[in-house]
Amino acid sequence: MTTLALLHPGEMGTAVGICARDVGACVAWSSAGRSEQSRQRARDAGFQACESIVDLLEIADIAISVCPPHAAVDLAQSVISAGFAGLFVDANAIAPATARRISELMKAAGIEFLDAGIIGPPPSAGARSTLYLSGGDALAIERLFAGTPLSVRAIDGPVGVASALKACYAAWNKGATALLANVRALAAHEGVESALLDEWNPSQPDALKRSEHARNSARKAWRWTGEMDEIAATFRDAGLPDGFHMGASEVFRRLDIFKDRSDPPSIDEVTRAINKSPARRL
Amino acid sequence: MTTLALLHPGEMGTAVGICARDVGACVAWSSAGRSEQSRQRARDAGFQACESIVDLLEIADIAISVCPPHAAVDLAQSVISAGFAGLFVDANAIAPATARRISELMKAAGIEFLDAGIIGPPPSAGARSTLYLSGGDALAIERLFAGTPLSVRAIDGPVGVASALKACYAAWNKGATALLANVRALAAHEGVESALLDEWNPSQPDALKRSEHARNSARKAWRWTGEMDEIAATFRDAGLPDGFHMGASEVFRRLDIFKDRSDPPSIDEVTRAINKSPARRL
Repeated sequence: MTTLALLHPGEMGTAVGICARDVGACVAWSSAGRSEQSRQRARDAGFQACESIVDLLEIADIAISVCPPHAAVDLAQSVISAGFAGLFVDANAIAPATARRISELMKAAGIEFLDAGIIGPPPSAGARSTLYLSGGDALAIERLFAGTPLSVRAIDGPVGVASALKACYAAWNKGATALLANVRALAAHEGVESALLDEWNPSQPDALKRSEHARNSARKAWRWTGEMDEIAATFRDAGLPDGFHMGASEVFRRLDIFKDRSDPPSIDEVTRAINKSPARRL
Repeated sequence: MTTLALLHPGEMGTAVGICARDVGACVAWSSAGRSEQSRQRARDAGFQACESIVDLLEIADIAISVCPPHAAVDLAQSVISAGFAGLFVDANAIAPATARRISELMKAAGIEFLDAGIIGPPPSAGARSTLYLSGGDALAIERLFAGTPLSVRAIDGPVGVASALKACYAAWNKGATALLANVRALAAHEGVESALLDEWNPSQPDALKRSEHARNSARKAWRWTGEMDEIAATFRDAGLPDGFHMGASEVFRRLDIFKDRSDPPSIDEVTRAINKSPARRL
């Protein structure tokens, strides 16, 4: 029986852990420093609780890191400090260069490493996702999730390739949402929102519909800021324009006030939050 | 009979002129400083040729400016220098602040002014477009294009509102094309283009299809750079993130090599042009 250390039981991490649990893995977590929400999720899922990350990593064969992008390097370092001796999988939405940096740290500590990227929603019976892997032997991970809603796909190439793929996917998916939210904020500021919607309605119906995505995205925006920063760095490192995702990072930063909302804000609440300056008077 | 001064007979300007001509206006243009392509278009359309902008504006009741955005202010100034005494319509893709600046110049010179923005393709029997107007009495323009494929729509509000609406529309339409071209360039650079297309194909079919738009856009990119700069300024003036369109401006700048191509480049040619640095070796 494989023991998987789940770092940490957030929304995505818990769903990933449940996939492994359902096909026979022992999924364990460390309660130290976790929010009450994460504790509740882990208890509900029946994961084995450990009191510290050291205790957790002592019993684990594989550790998977699923955390907000801005916390990925610190988390990797805490795994090294804990003296982990298994396989470490970084499944976070980080730049390829960040993945390579973590890989170097792991290599120096003698820890086996896989770069990973999850594309899709938290996996469940009704919602399949894909865990892309690169930079090592993916067999243990393929076995861990075989037959679950989390498809595992190893792609050719070194550490960084899986993260690059995830960055490209999110660069459009989340970047387009941020761009449209920014456009609606501008339209509101300039007093042309209804004229824009009238023009979009016949000629760009996808824009109209997609611009509403910002409502659901608003509650996750607090962790998307870091992801957009990582994506901007990915473009910059490649010699490509980084402005789109620096803009997207700022849009999501202005939406982080919606983090603890129980229901999605209205589109007017979203555009007001993005618009810091008052509406232009006509 | 109204005489319309067409400044200048580019692709869009010529189509707008033909609309007015077909319902009875005399459409005139000035051959001074125009490209052979523009001259040919104006001759083919049967517009009345004048030898200078002074001659042209002396006979015109209305002058309409349809030029690359970066040339709009200079063109407006040349209209003032020529001593024009009619109605000046700026239909360029410029920032509201630029439209207000031109409006002030016109006001100081005693020239009647309308802010305008064209949304849609060059109008023809098979392709309707809309000319939005703000900041003045739109009646003369409504009459000029009545019953043509160019719908005229006056929107409430001062000078700048029509330009703001056009900016919002293009911010998404052209911004999304630039974003997707940048994403495909990154995917090519990182060696994950086929994996990205495989992932897009079922989950984001619109992204796959829309990313191909960059092929047709490439030949127009030379004049979209200025439009993206104007849009970035529009966001900045409103206190909103301007990075998306600074990025879009740079993407289109890298595509200006395709200006004189007779056929659209392939998507590989597009991504190679955007990627200045060599592809990452796997």
